[in-house]
Amino acid sequence: MPDSVGELGEFGLIGAVTARLPQGPDVLLGPGDDSAVVAAPDGRVVVTTDLLVENRHFRRDWSDAADVGHKAAAQNLSDIEAMGARPTSLVVGLGVPADLPVDWAVGLMAGLGEEASLVGASVVGGDVVRSPLVVVSVTALGSLDGVPPVTRSGARPGDVVAVCGRLGWAEAGYQVLSRGFRTPRAVVEAHRRPAVPYGAGREAAELGATAMCDVSDGLLGDLGHVASASGVSVDVDAASLVVAPQLREVASALGADPLAWVLTGGDDNALVACFPVDVEVPERWTVIGSVSAGSGVTVDGSAYDGAAGHDHFAG
Amino acid sequence: MPDSVGELGEFGLIGAVTARLPQGPDVLLGPGDDSAVVAAPDGRVVVTTDLLVENRHFRRDWSDAADVGHKAAAQNLSDIEAMGARPTSLVVGLGVPADLPVDWAVGLMAGLGEEASLVGASVVGGDVVRSPLVVVSVTALGSLDGVPPVTRSGARPGDVVAVCGRLGWAEAGYQVLSRGFRTPRAVVEAHRRPAVPYGAGREAAELGATAMCDVSDGLLGDLGHVASASGVSVDVDAASLVVAPQLREVASALGADPLAWVLTGGDDNALVACFPVDVEVPERWTVIGSVSAGSGVTVDGSAYDGAAGHDHFAG
Repeated sequence: MPDSVGELGEFGLIGAVTARLPQGPDVLLGPGDDSAVVAAPDGRVVVTTDLLVENRHFRRDWSDAADVGHKAAAQNLSDIEAMGARPTSLVVGLGVPADLPVDWAVGLMAGLGEEASLVGASVVGGDVVRSPLVVVSVTALGSLDGVPPVTRSGARPGDVVAVCGRLGWAEAGYQVLSRGFRTPRAVVEAHRRPAVPYGAGREAAELGATAMCDVSDGLLGDLGHVASASGVSVDVDAASLVVAPQLREVASALGADPLAWVLTGGDDNALVACFPVDVEVPERWTVIGSVSAGSGVTVDGSAYDGAAGHDHFAG
Repeated sequence: MPDSVGELGEFGLIGAVTARLPQGPDVLLGPGDDSAVVAAPDGRVVVTTDLLVENRHFRRDWSDAADVGHKAAAQNLSDIEAMGARPTSLVVGLGVPADLPVDWAVGLMAGLGEEASLVGASVVGGDVVRSPLVVVSVTALGSLDGVPPVTRSGARPGDVVAVCGRLGWAEAGYQVLSRGFRTPRAVVEAHRRPAVPYGAGREAAELGATAMCDVSDGLLGDLGHVASASGVSVDVDAASLVVAPQLREVASALGADPLAWVLTGGDDNALVACFPVDVEVPERWTVIGSVSAGSGVTVDGSAYDGAAGHDHFAG
């Protein structure tokens, strides 16, 4: 096999990257035609898309190809989870420089496929084009299987706010990597591959969650979206937030505040949801706050004076 | 409003580009949440994706923002048509340099929305990120409304081959633009905005088309995909191909062969389909060849010695 994607050409590369993609039961027509056909059993399809650009959303010297594939898939699958839906499939647009090793493109697709397979979803199609830098576009589809979608706009005063998944870990990993370190491994790995709490979105929907959001811009930023869409205020109880010993250690070494990472760090793809107060939230969810009449997000009753969420245009 | 997307920021830009996107009847939940929800009335969804990279798939000095939006939408909607499906929705990933005028991004989204509205489809979601050059990722969804998908693999010996839509026009426009001219306007416009024969894909499916393909890589290249997927050979009758006077004029001025543009030019997004011989093809379809046992594509019984299709990695 040629070493670079330029030598292999478009159709050769498409063949190489789609060769071993397993197709799950929701796939009615897989890769290789003008379009794919996927089951949408209840007559609705959930759809979300994200674009990842090299040196902005990932660095090839920080993450290997499979890491980038896992991350690109995970952040889309998480947006499907956040509606209470079950991911069924992904399509991928891949922009590659001519000198990109074929192995890198193949590794990326393998990572995408592996992450998708964690939830039984399949990579059903894509597009490969030449680009001066690596660009990965992922669109995920999902099925609600009869449940109503959980939006950002249904939170009501009196609801409790709960989180499922890790917070602050990806930010800790980013801070470590950006200072030239490669350890501690746990936080670096968290930056490379988010650990999405798969299944928790559907679980929350079935428990009657009133609103839900994927935490990709940071807890306070994403709760701000929920507060704004729902026309409510949200207060976070700082003492209820889990600040893992690993984060404390890294923050201590770097002279940083680990609670700020938990409150504002992005890219962990945790889920945050609002539940009626009488719902007994399952163990993997942690109640971290409450919803009131009003607007905006507070921490322990006050405006938080750290950075509120991260804008992908900043930095 | 700030002049550049860098000044406006991610959330501001998202607001600006999604402000006036009309939502059609298939949209159950539109832009603004983690994901959108779209109707898939027969329990299946058709999905396709394309990635357009500045200076490879479009040039900002050749096409205005609305042109790029129209083209990005059209080439995806055409892939939905080519399955016999009806487009319902698009999601868009947009990579923008900080110095990109806000008007350009807004114009792009307006072009996308206008093209989608030609078929009653809606832009239901997207992602906006910073990128050193403009990147547009479009994913289109469609509904089969109970008809079976028309794939590339069903052509049978004895079928006739028919084409609907223009061929060679986008290539003629490209040749004109690449020599620094801006006229004739008709071919330049064809390069900027393909004229997809909307509705013809469903029409072909209902008439019993055995195979169908969008002509994006060039007629011979795309017929090669059909021949290969179906395990048949296809012969094109050159005399049956329409070579419009406008193409003859441009080719004459440039010393080129207009038939070569018709046979191998890409990006017109015509449809080519195979039909059982007893089907009376509607007037907008032109019978251009036939299917036999064997393999490969010929023109008037012989291998074509021009360039066979275009590889998006070339040039």
